[in-house]
Order: sequence, then structure tokens, then C-alpha cells
Amino acid sequence: MGSLFMVFKADETAIVLIEFQNDFCKPGYPLYPGIEAVLNGYKVIENTVELVKVARSKGVLIVGCPIVFESDYKDLGLDFGIKANVKKLGVFRKGTKGSEFIDELKPYVDIYVEGKRGLDGFHGTNLDMILRYRGIKNVAIAGFLTNVCVESTARTAYDLNYKVIIVKDCTAAMSWEEQRYAEEKLFPLIAEVLTHKEFLERIK
Amino acid sequence: MGSLFMVFKADETAIVLIEFQNDFCKPGYPLYPGIEAVLNGYKVIENTVELVKVARSKGVLIVGCPIVFESDYKDLGLDFGIKANVKKLGVFRKGTKGSEFIDELKPYVDIYVEGKRGLDGFHGTNLDMILRYRGIKNVAIAGFLTNVCVESTARTAYDLNYKVIIVKDCTAAMSWEEQRYAEEKLFPLIAEVLTHKEFLERIK
Amino acid sequence: MGSLFMVFKADETAIVLIEFQNDFCKPGYPLYPGIEAVLNGYKVIENTVELVKVARSKGVLIVGCPIVFESDYKDLGLDFGIKANVKKLGVFRKGTKGSEFIDELKPYVDIYVEGKRGLDGFHGTNLDMILRYRGIKNVAIAGFLTNVCVESTARTAYDLNYKVIIVKDCTAAMSWEEQRYAEEKLFPLIAEVLTHKEFLERIK
Amino acid sequence: MGSLFMVFKADETAIVLIEFQNDFCKPGYPLYPGIEAVLNGYKVIENTVELVKVARSKGVLIVGCPIVFESDYKDLGLDFGIKANVKKLGVFRKGTKGSEFIDELKPYVDIYVEGKRGLDGFHGTNLDMILRYRGIKNVAIAGFLTNVCVESTARTAYDLNYKVIIVKDCTAAMSWEEQRYAEEKLFPLIAEVLTHKEFLERIK
Repeated sequence: MGSLFMVFKADETAIVLIEFQNDFCKPGYPLYPGIEAVLNGYKVIENTVELVKVARSKGVLIVGCPIVFESDYKDLGLDFGIKANVKKLGVFRKGTKGSEFIDELKPYVDIYVEGKRGLDGFHGTNLDMILRYRGIKNVAIAGFLTNVCVESTARTAYDLNYKVIIVKDCTAAMSWEEQRYAEEKLFPLIAEVLTHKEFLERIK
Repeated sequence: MGSLFMVFKADETAIVLIEFQNDFCKPGYPLYPGIEAVLNGYKVIENTVELVKVARSKGVLIVGCPIVFESDYKDLGLDFGIKANVKKLGVFRKGTKGSEFIDELKPYVDIYVEGKRGLDGFHGTNLDMILRYRGIKNVAIAGFLTNVCVESTARTAYDLNYKVIIVKDCTAAMSWEEQRYAEEKLFPLIAEVLTHKEFLERIK
Repeated sequence: MGSLFMVFKADETAIVLIEFQNDFCKPGYPLYPGIEAVLNGYKVIENTVELVKVARSKGVLIVGCPIVFESDYKDLGLDFGIKANVKKLGVFRKGTKGSEFIDELKPYVDIYVEGKRGLDGFHGTNLDMILRYRGIKNVAIAGFLTNVCVESTARTAYDLNYKVIIVKDCTAAMSWEEQRYAEEKLFPLIAEVLTHKEFLERIK
Repeated sequence: MGSLFMVFKADETAIVLIEFQNDFCKPGYPLYPGIEAVLNGYKVIENTVELVKVARSKGVLIVGCPIVFESDYKDLGLDFGIKANVKKLGVFRKGTKGSEFIDELKPYVDIYVEGKRGLDGFHGTNLDMILRYRGIKNVAIAGFLTNVCVESTARTAYDLNYKVIIVKDCTAAMSWEEQRYAEEKLFPLIAEVLTHKEFLERIK
């Protein structure tokens, strides 16, 4: 679609980092093997550190959006689908190292979203409040899984009338097939799909 | 996943019909050509009539969920992505024949959702109120597009803790590739995927 | 508080008309006797017609926000509190004259909210979408009951970070005691309270 | 209204504790003087400890609902109305002793709501998710201020179709006038108003 949105004013722009938590990003944690191929293929961590470092220095708001459950998962709800896996693997438990944001990104996060328990970063959270209270119009999304939580958040951002940007080389799915489908078939319906370098160049 | 939810009590079950409007379903209307292959390949209209006729006779609530805009689209928001196409094609305009539900289904709709302007049937609408006011726990979804509005509605239904059923042969995407991806890769993460006959057999 | 918000840019301002329906506003309809004293004491209808006529000519968006139920109230939910009264009196039923907006205001309404079934004009409706899609920052509220639906809508508008204006002589409660309490004790915590003439003078 | 809801099944019932934080409840903290008269007149802390102790032993879910802002209030939004006072007084700041729940109640809280930044405990929070995920139908509310955050939360609970109970001797406003108005004029429209002893007797 070319330069759909042209330029992004820094003070009207936020980057939402979906679930850059150790449970996903670090070898030895349960969800790492699933995204390893795309994570490393794209160099997602490296790219994302560069993304937030440069964007923040230009005045872009960096929003961390973790998913964290009570340690007994009493706030998980029905135990089926992808949430059943969360419980089975014991991930995203409050107070664990696995549920923390990765050390590389912590210094750049301006504010963390609270309340995320589902796929959609806006569902039952203060994300929309954070964004609208600060006059944000452009929402760039990065994180995991590309076709699950990143996509649910992007769909709702679109319904909320934000200009949505997917920073594709800062996302990862569990297979290249799913990653490509999201990038090529789904996201163009609701967002502009850019690499982190393309996005950074468009911030003014 | 086999019989994930076992049986569905009729009075705790609703079928949500996403955008069974003439603009999508009928030859000569603008969006018909896009879904024609899957719509006819699956016999979606025929299946859906049978679905709601039988389910309703068992006590299931039938909810119509149309998308309708003001005739000048003043309520459409930013003009990009898939909504830009809605405006360009002039579809889903209040008061037009194209925006009406198809005649085949009208007699079976118990209640219509109001407010849908985005992808997600729950966003800015009274859908959740309709369902929770009546004690609904199981939400079966049919309609168009499989990977756009049906999927956004299913994702939010999952986040709202409903048991979600996708009635696959009552949905259609713009290509078999997208249809298959949704059915096989995405929906199993958040729903049980059934044919209309399988779903009907499980209602008690 | 003096001139809390100073001036209101017309194209960032909307007036939300809560339940200016015949069931409330017209002699002979069930809810009229309850608000008659304040309605006529303030000349609410007369004031509101002047309010929307002048404001609209300056470019302010006029939003009608009716409450309408299915004729069998299947979408009313639990039958207690103030909603029990709605059902008992048979008011706000879809398709009745009583549920229509009053003729005096119809020509000035730019758009009607859909989905309102509860106290809060934002709950389960497309009101926030209508406002944010058009860049509205200032929300002036008029209608009935001052301390019930007007107040619930104002409270949520405040939580949504809109600048909230209560147009006091365009609202009515069931007693002067309740009207005064809302105007003097509650609204100043969340809104600027103005007469319609004061509000009109501040629109630029 | 007498015994509006008859009995409450313990496993369908939750008590939501609004802002029982040191900033409100403890001498020496900024908001204490404002509520001192009603707080001590009713013995709110004493009553609430008894309320949650007994209710929890019967199986009722105890939900803490604090309001907490970033220390620079970047998530507070527009600086007018009652929120301007929050900022001016420096209360409810993350990481301070003032923002913590009072020690007397901590042992009884099963789960804390995240995201509350406005008046309404449901707005931008995971409160509804917590309740619906556990099949809660009855929501008893206690806390501060009776006519501000308690009332906003009760209004939305009503719109969400919960059976709402106000535990009146576990709430406090800034004056007896406001306390009485809420108890006698407003709450009966949306809730059953009970003392903590009356409520405890009705739990089965």
C-alpha cells in the first residue's frame, strides 16, 4: 500500500510491546522453543531494542503490555484453547522471573498496561486510557504471538480508530507460515506493515 | 480436539449471525463476488437456514449482527484498510436493501445487535448485554468474512469467557486459502470448529 | 469554578441528548408526570431546542441518545430497581410513538446512538465511537433523569477523559431536591455546570 | 424494598472493596479528614473487617479495588474535577504507603483489580473479567467515596446485570448529607441497601 499514513508525529505515537516477557523470549523458558525460529530469524530482540531506543529519543511513548495471572490462575477463566496451554505450562505467573519483561527492554518502557488476561491488549485493561489520555493517534505494535495477541490487539486498535502499524520484524509467530499469513493476508486489512527501520524513518 | 465442550444446553446457547446482509449474500450486490466461491462451495445460506431453524426449535437464541453505517458514513472513522473498501463500494448503508438481512433468515432472528461499525461484533454494541442478560454461555458464530468479522467476534467472545463454536460450513472468506487458515490454524486456539450438523447434534 | 474550560471549539464539541423521548417529555405519556415540575420550571424543551439550533449552526455535533427495548423487554435483563419500573409502565418499547424522539428536536439530530439499554449512554453503545471517530473532546449533556442516566453518562464521559459540560437548564430530575443535589454536589466533581445560554456563549 | 434479592449463594457472590487504602483510611494521610466523620460514625473499618472475615469463611470472593497512579500522574488524564485534587494532594501514587490497602484488610483479599484510574471500578480494569470468570452474580460494594467511586461502580454493576448490594455501614462520603442522599435517594434505584450484618445473614 506504499506510505499509507505518510509520517507519524512523535507525540501522537506509541509503541505497544506485547508480552516481551522471559517466558517467551529467553532460552530455557517454556514458550521460547515455539517462537525460536521466527524470533531469531528476524532478530526480534535486537530490532526491538533499537526500535524503542530510537523512537523514545524522538518522543514516542513506549508502552509495555505484559500478560500476568495470579499464581493459582484463578483469573484465567475457562480452561480451553490457548489459555489451557498457559496453565499447563505454568507460564505468566505473577511474581515469577518468567513473567517479567526482559532486561533489555525494561529501561525504555514508560508505562506498563495492567489487567491483560486475554488475547487482546485492550480487553479489561487500561491501555485505551493510557493512549487517549495522552492524545495518541498512531499505535505501533510489536511482540508475540504475531497472529494471536499482537493480532487481537491490532484488530481492536483498528476498531478504536487508531492508525495501526505492525512492526513486522519485531514480531514472532510459532511458524513462518503463520507469520507470513498474518503479515501478508490479514494485517494489510487493518494496518500498515513496516520493518522497524521503515517505521523509525517515518517518525517526525 | 474431539468433543471439547461435549453438549450445549439450549437455553445457555446463542447463534450469532455476522453480516448475513444482501450486500454480501446476493448476486448483483457488491460484496457477493468476493465470497462466491466459498459461499457456494459450502452452501452457506442453505446450511445456515437449517442451522437456525433447527436450533431455534430447540430453544437456542438467534442473534442477528449486521453492520450498518449512516448513509454518508459519518460514523465510519478513519478511511483506511478494509473500511475504506466499504465506503468506496457504498455498502452497508442504513435504509438500503443491501444492508438488510437476507429474507431467508429474517423469520428466525430473535433479536438484532445494534451499534456494529467495526470488525468485532462486541465492539461498541449491545451484543454482550444481550448474551449475559439471558445467561448465555455458549456462543456459536456464523457469517462473513471468516477471517475478519467472524474471527474478531470469536476472539472477543473468547476473551469474554464464552465457550466459542465456529460453525465452519456457515462461514465464508474471500479465498479458500484464508478459509482454511482460519479453520485449521487460528480457530482451534479459541474455539471448537464444527459443521452445522455436528453442532446441532450436540445441542440438548 | 468559574470558566473551567474557557472556550469550546465547535468542531471538537458534541451535545448528547439523553432520552428526549415522548414517554418522558409529553403530557399523557407515563413518565411525564414525574419530571413535570422541573421540566416546566426550567422550560427544558424550549431551552434545548434553542441549544441545539444555535450550537448546530456553529458546527457542534448533535447526538441523540434514546433508550429503546424490544417490545417484550427480552433485552432488559434483571427486573429490579429503576428498570423494573420501565417494564411495569411499558415505556421505551421499540416501534411505539412513546419511544420516539420528540418532534421539536428531530430536525437537529445529526446521529442517533444505538444500543442503550442501561443507565449509561456509553454502556453497550456506539457513543464513544461516534465521538472519538470525529475528534470530539468536549461533551455537553442534556436530558433525563438528571441524577440517573444523565449522571451515569457524565461519569463515564469523565472517565473517558472528555471535558464534560452539564447543561443544567436542559435537564430534569423527579424532584427539585434531586436536581439541586446533582447540580451542586455531584456534577462539580466531574463537569462544568452551565446554563444553555452560558454554554452557547463559550462555543467558538 | 424489603428483601429484594432474598438470599445470596456464597459461590455466586463477591464483595468489592473500593479504595480501602491508607490515603483514605488512616489519620495523618491526606484524604482521611474528609471522610473522618462518616468513617468513624459508622465504624467503617471495624464493620468491613467483620464483613470480609465472615463472608470469606462462607465462600464469598473478596476483591480489592485500589486506585493507583504512576508517580508522575502521567496516566491521570485531564486535570480537572476530582482528579485535579488527587494530583494536588499527591495521593494514590504507586509504590507509596498511602496507596496500599490497609493492613487490617490485606489478609482477606483474594484478588486485586488492576487498572483503576477513574471513578468506576469497571472502567479500564479487569474487574468484570474477575467476576464473570468465576460465575459471580451478586456484587456487594463497600468503600469510598460513597457517592463517587462506590456509586460509579454500583451504576456500572447494575448496567452489567449484576445484583448489586450496597453495604452502607461500610461506606463513607465527605458529609452525612451526601451519605444520606446516596443511601436513600440514589442507591434504591439500582441496588439493595443493607448493613453489613443484614448482608451477612442473607448469604447461604
